[in-house]
Amino acid sequence: MLNETHNPSLQSWVPSANLPDADFPLQNLPFAVFRRAGSAEAWRIGIAIGDQVLDLTHALCVDGLPGIKDPALLDACRQNALDDLMALGSAATSALRLALSRALRQGSAAQAVLADTLIAQGAVEYALPARIGDYTDFYTSIHHATHVGALFRPDNPLLPNYKWLPIGYHGRASSIGVSGQRFARPCGQTLPPGATQPVFGPARRMDYELELGILIGAGNTAGERIALDAADQHVFGLCLLNDWSARDLQAWEYQPLGPFLAKNFATTISPWVVTLEALAPFRQPWTRPAGDPQPLAYLDTPAHRQSGALDIELEVAIRTAAMHEAGLPPQRLGQSSFAQAYWSMAQMVAHHTVNGCNLQPGDLLGSGTQSGALAHEAGSLLELTHGGKQPVTLANGEQRTFLEDGDEVILRGRCHAPGAVSIGFGACCGTVLPALG
Amino acid sequence: MLNETHNPSLQSWVPSANLPDADFPLQNLPFAVFRRAGSAEAWRIGIAIGDQVLDLTHALCVDGLPGIKDPALLDACRQNALDDLMALGSAATSALRLALSRALRQGSAAQAVLADTLIAQGAVEYALPARIGDYTDFYTSIHHATHVGALFRPDNPLLPNYKWLPIGYHGRASSIGVSGQRFARPCGQTLPPGATQPVFGPARRMDYELELGILIGAGNTAGERIALDAADQHVFGLCLLNDWSARDLQAWEYQPLGPFLAKNFATTISPWVVTLEALAPFRQPWTRPAGDPQPLAYLDTPAHRQSGALDIELEVAIRTAAMHEAGLPPQRLGQSSFAQAYWSMAQMVAHHTVNGCNLQPGDLLGSGTQSGALAHEAGSLLELTHGGKQPVTLANGEQRTFLEDGDEVILRGRCHAPGAVSIGFGACCGTVLPALG
Repeated sequence: MLNETHNPSLQSWVPSANLPDADFPLQNLPFAVFRRAGSAEAWRIGIAIGDQVLDLTHALCVDGLPGIKDPALLDACRQNALDDLMALGSAATSALRLALSRALRQGSAAQAVLADTLIAQGAVEYALPARIGDYTDFYTSIHHATHVGALFRPDNPLLPNYKWLPIGYHGRASSIGVSGQRFARPCGQTLPPGATQPVFGPARRMDYELELGILIGAGNTAGERIALDAADQHVFGLCLLNDWSARDLQAWEYQPLGPFLAKNFATTISPWVVTLEALAPFRQPWTRPAGDPQPLAYLDTPAHRQSGALDIELEVAIRTAAMHEAGLPPQRLGQSSFAQAYWSMAQMVAHHTVNGCNLQPGDLLGSGTQSGALAHEAGSLLELTHGGKQPVTLANGEQRTFLEDGDEVILRGRCHAPGAVSIGFGACCGTVLPALG
Repeated sequence: MLNETHNPSLQSWVPSANLPDADFPLQNLPFAVFRRAGSAEAWRIGIAIGDQVLDLTHALCVDGLPGIKDPALLDACRQNALDDLMALGSAATSALRLALSRALRQGSAAQAVLADTLIAQGAVEYALPARIGDYTDFYTSIHHATHVGALFRPDNPLLPNYKWLPIGYHGRASSIGVSGQRFARPCGQTLPPGATQPVFGPARRMDYELELGILIGAGNTAGERIALDAADQHVFGLCLLNDWSARDLQAWEYQPLGPFLAKNFATTISPWVVTLEALAPFRQPWTRPAGDPQPLAYLDTPAHRQSGALDIELEVAIRTAAMHEAGLPPQRLGQSSFAQAYWSMAQMVAHHTVNGCNLQPGDLLGSGTQSGALAHEAGSLLELTHGGKQPVTLANGEQRTFLEDGDEVILRGRCHAPGAVSIGFGACCGTVLPALG
């Protein structure tokens, strides 16, 4: 489903968009909600191009996107969040992307009026891209599920349902923040080793989780399913997601109804939402390992087998307080790819709605921690340090089993494919602060 | 904390409010969002008095509540949902209740102008009382937890954490509906007895859950806790809640991350929200059974021990399609009391926020199924029929193990205490429709 916007020969009149390692070339055009940093300006929709933000409201005001005529789309573009644009569905997003691609490419007649609407990304701050009504977190990496299962249930790591349905659970929407989120280490109950009574205090096993977020576009009516092959029409785009987790709280509280206080104090997502259309060149066949069962019919179609997977390379890095002070860059702790997920984005959407549950524009689905089979592919410290038993030594000599106060965690994502211009997700950063007294 | 509004000798100039079995006497004054049934009128806030609804916007328009002067409160009263009123906190609600009590009592000078603003409850329809941002369901009945645990985990019914923390998990906000909700029986995966592979189809073990809902008033900032003794200031009021559950979907999917599609297709709440102030006469000491551990300090204070429990009698009834056709009334299946809950409302609020998780106005907490120790106190069919093994025979000869298509389930709640006027919650009704093809 490639179109004019994916043409790899197109270059932008914004020079930084044409650099080979740019996250935001002309072929990406992700959306965010922004304003000038430290200002009291109204939040508005922006599009990333190179190291700049195109102010969509301003661009329409100066007639810089003449291809956009639909009043509903024009109105959605002028809102202070992406919800209305998401609700219009994938055809509207595609039309907007085409107009943006034409306006921002070299030789565009709109360059003269649009150049003035650009603001450097370094000079802006971001809000959440949408009013997230519901947040669901999945568990789609079989490597993560096996590694973590072995720590929580050594005799029974991967439960019998795992290979049959995309395990998911509902998370907390109120505590989702945008990149830059800083939050106090949570307090709660934990059961010390060998004890029979819990104690109260700050969590000691603070962890990150390297995930993708899926933002829903057009929703479905309660009682109506979204079929597997229709799922793409209901996804607006993807972002990075850090599902912060307090492992010691989690171990004590999670049975029988799942994680609660171990997760709901904070979740951080990246500001830039990469549209599903921009990800089209990075689709791959969806397959099952030999010997594993094929999914039930509602989770398995020929079209999905052909292109159900998305090859998005992910990485997680740490920057401790000491590294900050010494001016050291973040150090990578793990890398993996969403192409390895056992369950795909479309399978999450189809499964979520197969019982008639309604998804709404702006709803967020987390992919679950994306880990690979190998040690350096761990998407959490729990896996990387084998449950805290094998500390990681950083380049500056510091050691970590779990996160310490002042640690910043940075997620990144990038897509490469033969014959396509590589695109990226920007960064998703968050920092653990000391627990409150 | 009784005040003038609780005075049992007060009577209303609305005659139906003074009947001894009225759910909505002058001492109750619950809030809802309503409009004339079948109309395209704007939704607005109403107060129940006897069998009538006082239209709050209209009442302010005709100067029927002269005691209300605060501009923020006046503005909140004129909205199309209760969120803004909730956000103003318990002092604002209390001031409004006092003005309403004075205006609606016998001898009020406002009777002449207010009489015109009343609409019969039989002539209105309701919307959800607030925009529910997040919905959390707890599991506070130890009888329910033990009964259900014995069915899902015969060797291990009550897990070691149960007596130490109020178990809770996040639910789905998008599918919450108001009384009268009708929804299709959900489809999904189930594992037939003895099978090793799941099958897909309509759920066969459809159940209700008899719960209370707690609607949050003033929220807390992320990172700040709500102390146990401050919890009351953050609760707007209570309603009835039916947490519909597909037990066969639940049994297959719930490990390790909790219930998901088994619950998120529909949740029904009653339209009338009974304020926490109206419930003050029905407070009771909060105690632990002899030999059970006392909670950790953040869940245990002298004030909470003195009056932490709320004595709310609950009941659940069924009206099958055949009963409807024959004109038969609903038949009661179970009754219990929230006073028996192992964890109180304040403990749910304090625990939910002890890690810094932020609650927002309009957020909903479910109490979990309220069951007693005895057979007739079951709050779910799962318990009443011993996992579907012992059918219930209804008065018309029909039998039920789980719900059948066309079954309507009706929840009711009522409070009695010596020296207080009894109050009620109205009804919370919902109907299971056939599964969609």
